[in-house]
Amino acid sequence: MPFQLTILGTSSALPTSNRYPTAQVLNVLGRFFLIDCGEGTQMQMRKYKISISRIDHILISHLHGDHIFGLIGLLSTMNLLGRKKDLHIYAHSELQRFLQFQLDFLYPADPIPFKLVFHPLNFKKEQIIFEDKRLTIKSFPLNHRIATCGFRFDERPPLPNLIKEQIQHFKIPIREMQRIKEGDDFTTETGEVIPNNLLVHPQKPGRSYAFCSDTAFLETIAENVRNVDLLYHEATFAEDNRALATATYHSTGKDAATIARKAEVKKLLIGHFSARYKDQSAILDEALLIFPDTIIAEEGLTISV
Amino acid sequence: MPFQLTILGTSSALPTSNRYPTAQVLNVLGRFFLIDCGEGTQMQMRKYKISISRIDHILISHLHGDHIFGLIGLLSTMNLLGRKKDLHIYAHSELQRFLQFQLDFLYPADPIPFKLVFHPLNFKKEQIIFEDKRLTIKSFPLNHRIATCGFRFDERPPLPNLIKEQIQHFKIPIREMQRIKEGDDFTTETGEVIPNNLLVHPQKPGRSYAFCSDTAFLETIAENVRNVDLLYHEATFAEDNRALATATYHSTGKDAATIARKAEVKKLLIGHFSARYKDQSAILDEALLIFPDTIIAEEGLTISV
Repeated sequence: MPFQLTILGTSSALPTSNRYPTAQVLNVLGRFFLIDCGEGTQMQMRKYKISISRIDHILISHLHGDHIFGLIGLLSTMNLLGRKKDLHIYAHSELQRFLQFQLDFLYPADPIPFKLVFHPLNFKKEQIIFEDKRLTIKSFPLNHRIATCGFRFDERPPLPNLIKEQIQHFKIPIREMQRIKEGDDFTTETGEVIPNNLLVHPQKPGRSYAFCSDTAFLETIAENVRNVDLLYHEATFAEDNRALATATYHSTGKDAATIARKAEVKKLLIGHFSARYKDQSAILDEALLIFPDTIIAEEGLTISV
Repeated sequence: MPFQLTILGTSSALPTSNRYPTAQVLNVLGRFFLIDCGEGTQMQMRKYKISISRIDHILISHLHGDHIFGLIGLLSTMNLLGRKKDLHIYAHSELQRFLQFQLDFLYPADPIPFKLVFHPLNFKKEQIIFEDKRLTIKSFPLNHRIATCGFRFDERPPLPNLIKEQIQHFKIPIREMQRIKEGDDFTTETGEVIPNNLLVHPQKPGRSYAFCSDTAFLETIAENVRNVDLLYHEATFAEDNRALATATYHSTGKDAATIARKAEVKKLLIGHFSARYKDQSAILDEALLIFPDTIIAEEGLTISV
């Protein structure tokens, strides 16, 4: 079952001829989450064969133009494609005003026939913003010029299977099975306690992904993204532009790698590159010194976690 | 001196993996006019090496999303690039409200430091919207679901050069020369009238381009675009979708070619293709039957008129 990230845009505020503003799609078990929606996102989705109609959840880190200008075009296209399903948007509450004005302007007589369900983010503390049997998504504060959140996706793996032979051996009744799958030990009629790990197959750990953009270096992020399999962290600059990074509340390659190391993540993906850099080797090189399993985000890159 | 069109987008409302929403740039003698500004226009400008800071005039045919969603990103980028020069926008007066809301939202404390000069279009009749020594631009009504204008660009060629030998022969005084360049005959002291064409080199005719999108077939367009060197006319559908073309106020390849033939233009460029067509051969073929000098618009196509 997929847990797969597709990168649609990796530029910072100024797009270049081959880097688009921020957008990504995470496919979790066939459910598609769009993270940020810079200008051109819908065209990038076409190019990389992401179905627009399968997007039911959009997460917006913050309300800078390079993370939101693709929304109105995407909503218009969903309308043209005949969408009826609700669309959930997790963002700063002001985004609703921004989008509603544009929708009212474009469709004064004939409002779009699907509902936008807005979920306001909390920019002060970590918060669960989505939860079901298979997935938990949390938002957490970043440190940018305006209110900004990162997002962490944790797959909740299916309950483990029972070990058939043991179930028969200990004559475990059906009514006990669900509790054992959920982690309980089993006590026999004679009072003997059989530990859970003798009764179930080992559970596969859930997969995890975290997205952090835009942000200055912020130590608390390491806790929010601890142990994720894949961390996307912005690295707008290299250390040669440290003063600019500080002034604009952005990170360097070194900053991103420092968070990755502290958080003991498995892999680091860096992006949101300043148009100042013709290639990103300076940013990558300083990250690799600190966190060797670092790669560069590129449009169209797909990573299976 | 250039009179050169670059195509940035040729899709209709739904972009595809290789066709972007409408946008074009006309370079008239080093001055750049942006015509429509669909989503992704600024990225297409980067890709095809059109300088964003050289755009001083933007013409917007109508206020459907696929012709305007790139504006806010373009304005934001101009702001980031430090623009100070006025930017002239020729459009329906309501566009000002649409853009101003977004700018106020994005830059509440720190408005953009360049002025947007709005020039409202007249959707009832032909009108000169720009005029200087070298160029005249007219707008004229099209027939779409909402108020829509086409645009015609006519180069005014430089005044002709005097024929040096004739000037000496007829002893023409300096004070008369400007009038002769502007077309006057010359009367000698003895009362002899020397016709203008003996005194000046032949003048090169001015080059011309017209843009018509979006529109249903409208016979008056042929007058508005009469004899242009290059006509861009939308051809969203082929005749197999005649009913849809009528219902949505769009043209077919046959419609576009009929206008081109009636108007006796030199060359026809068709675009704004529906995503229904995987290739445009059906649209092109029916146009070629009526107007042989027809070509298909593609992203990145550059035509020197």
